[in-house]
Amino acid sequence: MREDEKERIKAKALEYFKEAVIILSSQEKKNMEIADLGLNDFERTGIVLVVYVNNSRYCAKEMVLFPRQTCPEHRHPDYNGREGKMETFRCRYGKIYLYIEGEKTENPKTHPPAGDEKYYSVYHEIILLPGDQYTISKNTFHWFQAGEEGAVISEFSSPSDDISDIFTDLRIKRVSNN
Amino acid sequence: MREDEKERIKAKALEYFKEAVIILSSQEKKNMEIADLGLNDFERTGIVLVVYVNNSRYCAKEMVLFPRQTCPEHRHPDYNGREGKMETFRCRYGKIYLYIEGEKTENPKTHPPAGDEKYYSVYHEIILLPGDQYTISKNTFHWFQAGEEGAVISEFSSPSDDISDIFTDLRIKRVSNN
Repeated sequence: MREDEKERIKAKALEYFKEAVIILSSQEKKNMEIADLGLNDFERTGIVLVVYVNNSRYCAKEMVLFPRQTCPEHRHPDYNGREGKMETFRCRYGKIYLYIEGEKTENPKTHPPAGDEKYYSVYHEIILLPGDQYTISKNTFHWFQAGEEGAVISEFSSPSDDISDIFTDLRIKRVSNN
Repeated sequence: MREDEKERIKAKALEYFKEAVIILSSQEKKNMEIADLGLNDFERTGIVLVVYVNNSRYCAKEMVLFPRQTCPEHRHPDYNGREGKMETFRCRYGKIYLYIEGEKTENPKTHPPAGDEKYYSVYHEIILLPGDQYTISKNTFHWFQAGEEGAVISEFSSPSDDISDIFTDLRIKRVSNN
């Protein structure tokens, strides 16, 4: 992604953080991660992340999804003798359509990005509004999409390494920013 | 503490969460913990807690300190073969005066509650404004006080059990709400 495009996205993400009244340090604003997951389709598939803390014990982040943007299906398996990542998503602003393993929801409220359906396999729907949260066990497939207004999401979790994530879409390469 | 007094404090804490634009579920509001730590001096020494998640891997909470209220000095040692709690405080609203082990700060901005000085031993001062955060290692003595406007603080940490906390003030008995 081009630098000017990244800066444009960062500025837009800051508007969402402002709307959600989440105050960031100048360093956090600078280090904001624009993840297009190598798909070059950021408008539809991608996510913005601000990592507050990620140490050997726990991790906390804020994330922004733009309207109808999707974080694609993946899971966090055990890796290198370390237990897979467990994570709690808490909606701070907007609406989140979260899909996890389990009974397929009839008439789900939304769908994977058109044309990418083959990279999605779990359809148990959970809807999160501000103040709602949901905890995802390690190694459980999940994907999520924002509603029409976009979403700001806090994530509390065990340590995060990105590199061990397994995406259903094998075109995706998650690279660590560290 | 009397039930009507607890309800009065909960209502006041909710005003702080509203001010900080932190949206809580009705269950979280109901389960809000008013910790007076057995000192019966809540106006000066105590804290309000809302636990978002506390599992075997990580913990996340919101906390409210009323104006000039102090969370008294304590540390989180290893306990029962489990590593002591490591925690990150992030200021969301107001101002936090945090004191930890280390070089004593000359002319600190505030002081322990008058008459309780003997229960306080660490005076390395760190001031947190909204968007600032600080991570405290396990087994490190710390205490903190809100400024004139009170404070709302997010805590991200390893699992929390309360029962293993060691307070400098031996009058304090921290009991688990679970």
